Amino acid sequence: MAHERLKVVIIGAGFGGLYAAQTLERQADIDVLLIDKNNYHTFTPLLYQVATCGLDADAIAYPIRGIFRRQSNVDFLLGSVTAIDTTAQRVTVQASGEERIESYDRLIIAAGSVTNYFGNSAIGKFAFELKSLEDALRLRSHILSIFERAAWSADDAARYAYTTIVVVGGGPTGLETAGAMQELYSFVLKKEYTGLTPRVILVEAVDRLLVAYPERLQAAAKRQLESLGVEVILGDAVEKAFDDHIILKSGRVIPTHTLVWSAGVQAAPAAELIATEVGKAGRLMVEPTMAVKNVENVYAVGDIVYLLNDKGVPYAAQIPVAKQQGELAARNLLRKRMMQAELPFVYRDRGIMATIGRSRAVAWLYYRIQLTGFAAWLAWLALHLVSLLGMRNRLNVLLNWVWNYFTFDRSARIILPLKQKSTPSLPENNVESSALPPSGVERDLAGVR
Amino acid sequence: MAHERLKVVIIGAGFGGLYAAQTLERQADIDVLLIDKNNYHTFTPLLYQVATCGLDADAIAYPIRGIFRRQSNVDFLLGSVTAIDTTAQRVTVQASGEERIESYDRLIIAAGSVTNYFGNSAIGKFAFELKSLEDALRLRSHILSIFERAAWSADDAARYAYTTIVVVGGGPTGLETAGAMQELYSFVLKKEYTGLTPRVILVEAVDRLLVAYPERLQAAAKRQLESLGVEVILGDAVEKAFDDHIILKSGRVIPTHTLVWSAGVQAAPAAELIATEVGKAGRLMVEPTMAVKNVENVYAVGDIVYLLNDKGVPYAAQIPVAKQQGELAARNLLRKRMMQAELPFVYRDRGIMATIGRSRAVAWLYYRIQLTGFAAWLAWLALHLVSLLGMRNRLNVLLNWVWNYFTFDRSARIILPLKQKSTPSLPENNVESSALPPSGVERDLAGVR
Repeated sequence: MAHERLKVVIIGAGFGGLYAAQTLERQADIDVLLIDKNNYHTFTPLLYQVATCGLDADAIAYPIRGIFRRQSNVDFLLGSVTAIDTTAQRVTVQASGEERIESYDRLIIAAGSVTNYFGNSAIGKFAFELKSLEDALRLRSHILSIFERAAWSADDAARYAYTTIVVVGGGPTGLETAGAMQELYSFVLKKEYTGLTPRVILVEAVDRLLVAYPERLQAAAKRQLESLGVEVILGDAVEKAFDDHIILKSGRVIPTHTLVWSAGVQAAPAAELIATEVGKAGRLMVEPTMAVKNVENVYAVGDIVYLLNDKGVPYAAQIPVAKQQGELAARNLLRKRMMQAELPFVYRDRGIMATIGRSRAVAWLYYRIQLTGFAAWLAWLALHLVSLLGMRNRLNVLLNWVWNYFTFDRSARIILPLKQKSTPSLPENNVESSALPPSGVERDLAGVR
Repeated sequence: MAHERLKVVIIGAGFGGLYAAQTLERQADIDVLLIDKNNYHTFTPLLYQVATCGLDADAIAYPIRGIFRRQSNVDFLLGSVTAIDTTAQRVTVQASGEERIESYDRLIIAAGSVTNYFGNSAIGKFAFELKSLEDALRLRSHILSIFERAAWSADDAARYAYTTIVVVGGGPTGLETAGAMQELYSFVLKKEYTGLTPRVILVEAVDRLLVAYPERLQAAAKRQLESLGVEVILGDAVEKAFDDHIILKSGRVIPTHTLVWSAGVQAAPAAELIATEVGKAGRLMVEPTMAVKNVENVYAVGDIVYLLNDKGVPYAAQIPVAKQQGELAARNLLRKRMMQAELPFVYRDRGIMATIGRSRAVAWLYYRIQLTGFAAWLAWLALHLVSLLGMRNRLNVLLNWVWNYFTFDRSARIILPLKQKSTPSLPENNVESSALPPSGVERDLAGVR
């Protein structure tokens, strides 16, 4: 049976888009155009390790053209999608000021998520994020620079503010960042800068960490974090942020120049480019087949999607969800062409885990086995190593981890002259109405794949 | 015998400054303040590998505070020296807009060199350099970006210009860069971008490559370079540079957006901060003891220094020279304090070598043994691996080299949003009078340590 030749455009080369493209690799009569604003795919669960000087940036980035080098049917385009015309079936792509129109037969939107400041965009001006490699390098450069500024300063109060970091969000990303930062302080920076007393403070709006986890693991996470030296503040939130201090809802003032925001995500701005229903946090409503509601020939997958599971709870913005949805969208697109029935999304969920630091973690495997401490940490390590794209990256990361474990060293400490954060992550018109609750389960969870 | 406590300020943490500081480590009654504008030391001989996607930036950078962590007498200051008062014996240091005065008992100037455009500063506006890690990352990001632009373009002539690179300078740095770039093209980019015909052109002003080498090795270098696919133009020079083309002295026009300048160096601007005689290329005149002429308590070492050897030829701007001079300046400073006679500089020279690519190199060991091809390449590899600071970096680099050798892969391909080259490398008032001859032996030679 002969088919029409299909051109499939995929927006975004994160986990959802990448798995969709890989599913369409080598399919007869299919041309794929994968569009991303970066020329590399990022292994996002390890961004916090780049930010805390544990890993080189290149170790967790993989060039997209390198992934599809041997597949002739997947082409790549570096650029940002600025418009989607679902009637004419074409997208507008922008790069270095130029514009280009690409038509499509099928579109898969996998543009991911951006940081959610829950309506408080003023905080966004001062906050560091951990959504991209740029974010991670920017945070790393900032911390190393500000410690040098502290070394210059003779003013005790100023030095205290320079060396205080506040991490907002008690989800896995917040815990990982706070823990790794505290380790960087204790094992490395304290030894290299005399007379500084750096500290890490974690702020969470609800009264416990890791809301999605069982109580025993929540308590273990808090205990492990505090044993590292992190101050954990529960039931409080950042109300105002300034260059040199923040004010909490409780009225407490914390002098700091470093606010790391990992309290939640919302749909990437691409979600606004098509006229359809959106759910909480601006996420696109889809059928269980991953087809976008009320639009022809368009699928959406991953963080940008709002889809309820069989308990009526929306799927979290997690990597394993994005991977499986990406695969399913591609498979359904192929099935439809073959006149086969499309399949609904059924999540194969292996559980959730979060690491807190060296030999410290919690894991809830298959929602039955609860691990804490060294066993959970080993499980986390093995899983992330296996998930890393590319053999060279895997070897590099393993080498660095083994090295860091035995030497307590952190060598990736270049201060890079990066451009400023270009645009505020948050589209102002998308906030008030669709903000996630700060304590919701839809956090940016780095879960089990 | 009790000594006065001495404060030694060292400007620059390149090879000269680093070896001076290490020589003064743990010396009784000595306090060292090491000042650099970066928080890391750079292993400059491998910059071209970062620029051509072979190595991560962090693999060739080592945090300065990490080097001296266990030594209490070496302190580090991140900043640029903007003034030196040799009468009051103090330096002015600037960082993030603030200023700080540091007094010294002894000063060692090891500020290195900057790119020399030989009076043609207009070229500097368009040229990429390979003097710092920033330069290397900027060139890497540019090449990867411009290939993406070429992939966008439908205009054959424009695509040809986008994918043409011109490297200026037939010294080791020029050869290494041209060779590695051609390999990146042949092994990686040609496979990932269909329909592009990238090319590398090397331009050298005199009629042969590697002027300091014997004829047999010069010929071998040219042959190996051409066997890779590099076009070698001898006896011609860049007269004018523009955004999208360059014009050679011969009148030939080469459409290109990428001009890499490695044709020579001159003293860093710090040389202008003290009033003393300067030699060619603005380099500071020193006594054979490395003491700066006509100034009390000031030494200078490395690229910034003009010193003649026993044949009346100035020492080249080479790493092994800088290392040995750094050590000597520190030792002489200690000897003088002990009322011992200062020692003159005697260069322990093990020869010179240059690599051209995979299994391609030339080496002239102890100026007796001439090696070419695989043997020279192995010698180059072993030597640079041993020279790399820090065990972790050495393992990382080895792993990457072995990987790249067997897979022809280049994975370090992140496009980073770096700030523009901040200042032109060349102080306008220092050029006409003291330019190095373009074909001189004082090139930026990455020699044997």
